[in-house]
Amino acid sequence: MKDINIAVIGYGYWGPNLVRNFAETPGARVAAVSDLDDTRLAMVRRRFPGVHTTTEFKDLLNDPHIDAVAIATPVHTHFELALAALQAGKHVWVEKPMTENSRQAHELIDAARRFGRVLLVDHTFVYTSAVAKMREIIHSGELGQVYYYDSIRVNLGLFQRDVSVIADLAVHDFSILDHLLGEHPVAVTSSGTNHFPGTPENLAYVTLFYESGTIAHANVSWLAPVKVRQILVGGSKKMITYDDLEPSEKIKVYDKGVSMVDDPARIHEMRVGYRTGDMWAPRLAVTEALRAESEHFVDCIVNGTTPRTDGQLGLRVVELIEAASQSMRRMGETVYLHHDARHDAHHDAPRLTHRAVHHELQHSREATT
Amino acid sequence: MKDINIAVIGYGYWGPNLVRNFAETPGARVAAVSDLDDTRLAMVRRRFPGVHTTTEFKDLLNDPHIDAVAIATPVHTHFELALAALQAGKHVWVEKPMTENSRQAHELIDAARRFGRVLLVDHTFVYTSAVAKMREIIHSGELGQVYYYDSIRVNLGLFQRDVSVIADLAVHDFSILDHLLGEHPVAVTSSGTNHFPGTPENLAYVTLFYESGTIAHANVSWLAPVKVRQILVGGSKKMITYDDLEPSEKIKVYDKGVSMVDDPARIHEMRVGYRTGDMWAPRLAVTEALRAESEHFVDCIVNGTTPRTDGQLGLRVVELIEAASQSMRRMGETVYLHHDARHDAHHDAPRLTHRAVHHELQHSREATT
Amino acid sequence: MKDINIAVIGYGYWGPNLVRNFAETPGARVAAVSDLDDTRLAMVRRRFPGVHTTTEFKDLLNDPHIDAVAIATPVHTHFELALAALQAGKHVWVEKPMTENSRQAHELIDAARRFGRVLLVDHTFVYTSAVAKMREIIHSGELGQVYYYDSIRVNLGLFQRDVSVIADLAVHDFSILDHLLGEHPVAVTSSGTNHFPGTPENLAYVTLFYESGTIAHANVSWLAPVKVRQILVGGSKKMITYDDLEPSEKIKVYDKGVSMVDDPARIHEMRVGYRTGDMWAPRLAVTEALRAESEHFVDCIVNGTTPRTDGQLGLRVVELIEAASQSMRRMGETVYLHHDARHDAHHDAPRLTHRAVHHELQHSREATT
Amino acid sequence: MKDINIAVIGYGYWGPNLVRNFAETPGARVAAVSDLDDTRLAMVRRRFPGVHTTTEFKDLLNDPHIDAVAIATPVHTHFELALAALQAGKHVWVEKPMTENSRQAHELIDAARRFGRVLLVDHTFVYTSAVAKMREIIHSGELGQVYYYDSIRVNLGLFQRDVSVIADLAVHDFSILDHLLGEHPVAVTSSGTNHFPGTPENLAYVTLFYESGTIAHANVSWLAPVKVRQILVGGSKKMITYDDLEPSEKIKVYDKGVSMVDDPARIHEMRVGYRTGDMWAPRLAVTEALRAESEHFVDCIVNGTTPRTDGQLGLRVVELIEAASQSMRRMGETVYLHHDARHDAHHDAPRLTHRAVHHELQHSREATT
Repeated sequence: MKDINIAVIGYGYWGPNLVRNFAETPGARVAAVSDLDDTRLAMVRRRFPGVHTTTEFKDLLNDPHIDAVAIATPVHTHFELALAALQAGKHVWVEKPMTENSRQAHELIDAARRFGRVLLVDHTFVYTSAVAKMREIIHSGELGQVYYYDSIRVNLGLFQRDVSVIADLAVHDFSILDHLLGEHPVAVTSSGTNHFPGTPENLAYVTLFYESGTIAHANVSWLAPVKVRQILVGGSKKMITYDDLEPSEKIKVYDKGVSMVDDPARIHEMRVGYRTGDMWAPRLAVTEALRAESEHFVDCIVNGTTPRTDGQLGLRVVELIEAASQSMRRMGETVYLHHDARHDAHHDAPRLTHRAVHHELQHSREATT
Repeated sequence: MKDINIAVIGYGYWGPNLVRNFAETPGARVAAVSDLDDTRLAMVRRRFPGVHTTTEFKDLLNDPHIDAVAIATPVHTHFELALAALQAGKHVWVEKPMTENSRQAHELIDAARRFGRVLLVDHTFVYTSAVAKMREIIHSGELGQVYYYDSIRVNLGLFQRDVSVIADLAVHDFSILDHLLGEHPVAVTSSGTNHFPGTPENLAYVTLFYESGTIAHANVSWLAPVKVRQILVGGSKKMITYDDLEPSEKIKVYDKGVSMVDDPARIHEMRVGYRTGDMWAPRLAVTEALRAESEHFVDCIVNGTTPRTDGQLGLRVVELIEAASQSMRRMGETVYLHHDARHDAHHDAPRLTHRAVHHELQHSREATT
Repeated sequence: MKDINIAVIGYGYWGPNLVRNFAETPGARVAAVSDLDDTRLAMVRRRFPGVHTTTEFKDLLNDPHIDAVAIATPVHTHFELALAALQAGKHVWVEKPMTENSRQAHELIDAARRFGRVLLVDHTFVYTSAVAKMREIIHSGELGQVYYYDSIRVNLGLFQRDVSVIADLAVHDFSILDHLLGEHPVAVTSSGTNHFPGTPENLAYVTLFYESGTIAHANVSWLAPVKVRQILVGGSKKMITYDDLEPSEKIKVYDKGVSMVDDPARIHEMRVGYRTGDMWAPRLAVTEALRAESEHFVDCIVNGTTPRTDGQLGLRVVELIEAASQSMRRMGETVYLHHDARHDAHHDAPRLTHRAVHHELQHSREATT
Repeated sequence: MKDINIAVIGYGYWGPNLVRNFAETPGARVAAVSDLDDTRLAMVRRRFPGVHTTTEFKDLLNDPHIDAVAIATPVHTHFELALAALQAGKHVWVEKPMTENSRQAHELIDAARRFGRVLLVDHTFVYTSAVAKMREIIHSGELGQVYYYDSIRVNLGLFQRDVSVIADLAVHDFSILDHLLGEHPVAVTSSGTNHFPGTPENLAYVTLFYESGTIAHANVSWLAPVKVRQILVGGSKKMITYDDLEPSEKIKVYDKGVSMVDDPARIHEMRVGYRTGDMWAPRLAVTEALRAESEHFVDCIVNGTTPRTDGQLGLRVVELIEAASQSMRRMGETVYLHHDARHDAHHDAPRLTHRAVHHELQHSREATT
């Protein structure tokens, strides 16, 4: 069977990883790389002598030997490039976030369907063995009801020019949450700031509310003195920590929790009791996530299947970025999320109106005051 | 000179620390301990045979040999007990938070002034050598402009019956921030939840906005599998990490940051550059905070001076708890803080109206959109 | 039943822990404390008004109400004090190491037997839940054959005046090893040094060889910039790490190891294969070790049973200190250990002659060259 | 100026790093790669289409366009390959350890001198910014007298077939010590074992004694459940920790130590006092060590200068491996090192006889007994 010929668009920060990775993926071949900057392309020619390079993106679309393009350019160019590629009959891999706004995301989904091409959004974390293990633990029921998800992604990071830290870092939590919970948030509140005039927000806090009662939070920053990549997931039975900077034992499962005491004789005492047990760090597969994702892309093209991180997931993530950004600009004002039957179809989430959600949530909150 | 005779009210979780500590403070003597539960008092008698015990709080107020009382009872009893003690002419040490609401806090401040007695609110962190060092670094200008304060206080903690996790844990950040910044927030947004019906919120996220542009955030929870007590403070020149669980090197100062590049030739590139230098962990004094606080209390009584953590600071903290709780119940709605000239007097903060603050903040936010 | 009346001899570094601990042990009562320095005794009187104090050790021996003495004085005084106490009919608790040399240890064992009194050597680590868990894992066979024990105990520590760092710190490993393995080493080699003329060695490395093939090593120092208390135990099936400074998860069990590959087709390749699986941190009981040890002492007195850390264990540890010290002074020269049938009785170790051990060990070593 | 044409011999574990690295080193060009296994060479051809590959090492020596060879093959082949390459007029880069024994090392040094070629031994750690910073701190006098060097290098590591863990891991400490101290040890003692019959020792402890009083220790193992790469260096003024697994802050300098108290009034107390001050983590250059080493190799070839890690350093390291292995086989027996004036020339170390060293060391040791 013939190898899938892939062209990589953009050889900046992420592009080299894509080239290296597709070069080593069975069934794939890096046919070409394009970038506006020829000095970047010179690096490609030195490292990968057999790969064609061009500064003209259009050349790649016109080349009938190229089956698929992988887009690793600034976010504001994603829509135009991906749409042109789909229209030219190419399969598309596009870096996260999928597009600048949900309208564009809808259009790409339509185009992919219309032209019958695979559209994969590069939410790499979904392909890590750590996230896969967390999903397995949650779906097996071992964790119990998911009480909360709490993520910290901070470091002295590359300030993006065209997107805020939410679209750069919290985006990872949005895709992980979508994959783990299979439930879409009903409301978002966010606060954040930019410390340099005229630049996007470099520090943000996002809270997501779910109908099931789960609460999720992401603390993201490009301006921290230390690098932290830590997630806590608390359930009614067990709790998980996920430290992505740990070389091994990234995932730890704690047999810890609390339980309500319903003893009328102890009515005046603490009603919440503790439970602490063993901790367990499951062995994780050592496959690189990007490799697994590349193989999955090739597989979807060959077999005509839908990627795990398809346009719908990409759209849901873009919607969360929009909602969080809107709330952040309004200093934390709650933003409710429309539930559109179409893109939530496979999640079986009920369609809620604004009012119903609001009522529901207020109700649960007021019970505690 | 005669020792100050102190009675400790409440021998539950915190009371034993107070008794042990006052027992070892020069110039102080633990004269009596009261608790409603005599089995708790039996522990006092066994450990401290010379200390008088009683289940009747009133006995202590009527005892003319007792100079001061230290109140370590549930929050909802603070106001009544402290007021009675001040009226009985006793100096008062009251555990944090000072009272259930700001109205009560105002009344206690008035009573302390009227009866000429010392009123100290037990915000212990203000007396730690770590916070003192952070304040010194900030006030020396070494950190530059304070960009943000980010705190995480989570563990599998004691669920409080009468107050939420904000009043239990975020309260520490409120007092530390007050001490570090000398500036009162202008607005608060908060989200959180309780996972057990009929109990206070056990997990919360609080964001504070300051007029100077500083943003502060506290992530607090009683329901985490691991214990974390970590603060990041980012400035325009340097950044600090404070890990309270580190046995030594609690405070680390990083000579790291970003700087804006204003080179027109690089207009298409990243405008924010990095700066990384040495890290430095200053030696901290090893005095126990509670001991320093006890000595400070005795000193204020003897010399008639105002405590570092006086009623005014206690009130400002209670106001933040109120505002954060209100925002949390409204799912993140921004709550603006009144600036009352009276209690902000020594901070020289301008009095802002709701409108002005809102305009100011919106303005800075919109500059980035 | 009457409480056991205990007198504590020496109120320096460790004495206060003993007093506090026995004061809270059911069935025990701290009747008296002696110390040569009356300012130390004043601290006792302030803290424990009911406890008799004296600078005359002899007073305690003559007091018929005192049932037992706990000796927490410098090592060179242990023998004389413990012997006098046994002769006066008191049960004896003596701080580690038991005595300055093995001759004295033999005499104390004889005296305890002659006078029918309990003799407990305070090897506290044997009573920790962490060591108990390690023993359980080893004895259950879960670890497989014990390949090695590797310990690091370093910090900027109190320089002892009368004993070297081996007697101060490696002593813990000697007692833990005795408890874990139930096998006595056959040979010892050690190197170390003192960095200040006229003081005992402050840094040492000790290697113990066992007939079963286990090798043990202790790296001990009073002159390290950081505190480390870490033990690795490697078995043929699993491996353990024990970090005593971890607040929780002190013990971690790794399902890791290597296995020999006997595939003739792979004769030119690596013959050792890897195996990595889950990690597991068992929950540990939270009892304080010193409390468990105190209760065990009281229990041995009441029921006339032999302590887990009896004189025989104390003697074996002293023999290892002697052998390691001798080797250290000779720059690593191997010192073989006599196996005396008497004190090894309950370990069922065969009596080996020097020659046999030497031959045995040389043989196994030469197989590899 | 013409690029230096380099051939890499051996494309197993380390070879790919050398190829990648020389490919990116200015002034160098990877002309050819040889390996006995053509499937390994196929990987080269796929990744680096322009590089010539061969299973015949001799082809490379006969190729007049090749200026230098880098040898990354098993240790027992180093001598023969390096000698042939030097005789063929090639400059030689040889992986550590240089040779199987010191006689071979002498011969290579002679050959390099005779044929006027550069001979660099690949002791990569010497080129790290961390070791450079440690050397700078020691040589500036900031650390004071070097009291000790203590290293731990353990993990579940690749079991070598032809050399022990000393030649594989302790070799790093030997080269680092040579570079840091500029002093050669006078005596070595070592213990260790193999846990699998017929394989080299997989766990070893090595102690080195220096005339200046410095003591060095390396704890190395291929059979640990966790990876540790940690060095402590203690001086009379300050102390250093070096954790190679830390992503940043690898080097920490502690202003800590002890000082002797010579107060006659305190003659009965502890004579050693503490000193604790700040900790400081200097910023390290981010250059990859292997890159710096490659550039240094090219520079030595172009300018005819002597490498920092020349044959003499390589020889001294091989001598330490020999001595440590001999001591290990004799269960810790001290092995004294000959000091040959020739290869120690640039260190200005005095030539010591066995007797003098022994006397000197015994003397210092006995002062403490």
